Amino acid sequence: MTRENKPGHDARPRGLAEPVSELTTSRLSVYLRCLNALEAEGVRTISSQALAEQFHLNAAQIRKDLAYFGEFGVRGIGYYVQELRRHLRQILGLDRGVRVAIIGAGNLGLALADYGGFRDDGFEIVALFDTLKEKIGRRSRGGVLIHDIRDFKKVARREGIGIAVVAVPGDAAQSAVNAAAAAGVRAILNFSPGAFKVPRGVKLKSMDLTVLLEGLSFFLVQGEENG
Amino acid sequence: MTRENKPGHDARPRGLAEPVSELTTSRLSVYLRCLNALEAEGVRTISSQALAEQFHLNAAQIRKDLAYFGEFGVRGIGYYVQELRRHLRQILGLDRGVRVAIIGAGNLGLALADYGGFRDDGFEIVALFDTLKEKIGRRSRGGVLIHDIRDFKKVARREGIGIAVVAVPGDAAQSAVNAAAAAGVRAILNFSPGAFKVPRGVKLKSMDLTVLLEGLSFFLVQGEENG
Repeated sequence: MTRENKPGHDARPRGLAEPVSELTTSRLSVYLRCLNALEAEGVRTISSQALAEQFHLNAAQIRKDLAYFGEFGVRGIGYYVQELRRHLRQILGLDRGVRVAIIGAGNLGLALADYGGFRDDGFEIVALFDTLKEKIGRRSRGGVLIHDIRDFKKVARREGIGIAVVAVPGDAAQSAVNAAAAAGVRAILNFSPGAFKVPRGVKLKSMDLTVLLEGLSFFLVQGEENG
Repeated sequence: MTRENKPGHDARPRGLAEPVSELTTSRLSVYLRCLNALEAEGVRTISSQALAEQFHLNAAQIRKDLAYFGEFGVRGIGYYVQELRRHLRQILGLDRGVRVAIIGAGNLGLALADYGGFRDDGFEIVALFDTLKEKIGRRSRGGVLIHDIRDFKKVARREGIGIAVVAVPGDAAQSAVNAAAAAGVRAILNFSPGAFKVPRGVKLKSMDLTVLLEGLSFFLVQGEENG
């Protein structure tokens, strides 16, 4: 730890000089996961070295990533677990709770709606949407109401939706993305394969499951060739 | 294109000098996606520059990634779409078809079992597993049979399972991972949050949905601060 803590500084990045990469933000998520575990164990302080060793991370990378957002370490002590955790939640925008809508009330949409892990992390699934009459008005097992997709804009504004999750068949995905963007939703997580267009200012993250499986398949081939 | 094609070479990496990063393999998956689209459009050849422009990729990166596995480009022509696609499928181990089992026949497991995109890409979901008596013996909407998890080893061997997907609640995930590894499955895709142990020689990829949502939440915060 070579940096001193300045009390009262604000951890949220203001007018960052360079954009933060997706890799950095996903590392911040990983650090947050680690700090959650440490706090649950009652650990009060930890050095970047100990954090790295315990969770198989890179100590220099931890220091670099965190230094980008402020000066969190205290010389001779390391990081205060509770304080750093609070700062990371603030940096990631989780401190105020993020409200999420899911478009598509099929198996995947329903699985996501009732996934307990989200709420613990500051995300609340507040609405499901579908086009099928027989689904509209029903609820997921966990109690999330299924709305008519035609009411998306109205519900999204009323509920203050920050993120829309698209979990519809591929041929319906672009129109779901369009509906979300048209309603002013600026962050979309998409589970359909393919490339989709979004207006400027809207962030679309796509989760292509096939890419994950292909990475594993590659591992299997490599193992056979080298083993 | 500065490399010449050597006919008859084998695209599969044999005893690679250095391990191929996960980033590289996911880029190969992206290239394959692009080539699928080009082949469907009837495009016969494409330069790395045109490939990069059409799909918003990096031409130098494409050349570097592909050169690692062989010499696919032809000077003055670029890549033969159909041939490169065939090679990429071979590199990723998709040419022989990969058989996949899903542990957990809840909403997520059923959604994955019936996801049509996998089959087109060389993955076949051949079995579901669960612990609940009322689910065992039934089938997903798409026809995948739900087996008793206690029969995992027997079924996995009979069906030649290459990849196991773990889609169970968090507290059951480690035992599902253990069951797969004990049956000799060497590649596991896990959807449960948390860190899991796998024996040496087994590759575990975890898909943490919360990390994706946190990346989007960070984007929303940044937009407010800078916008």
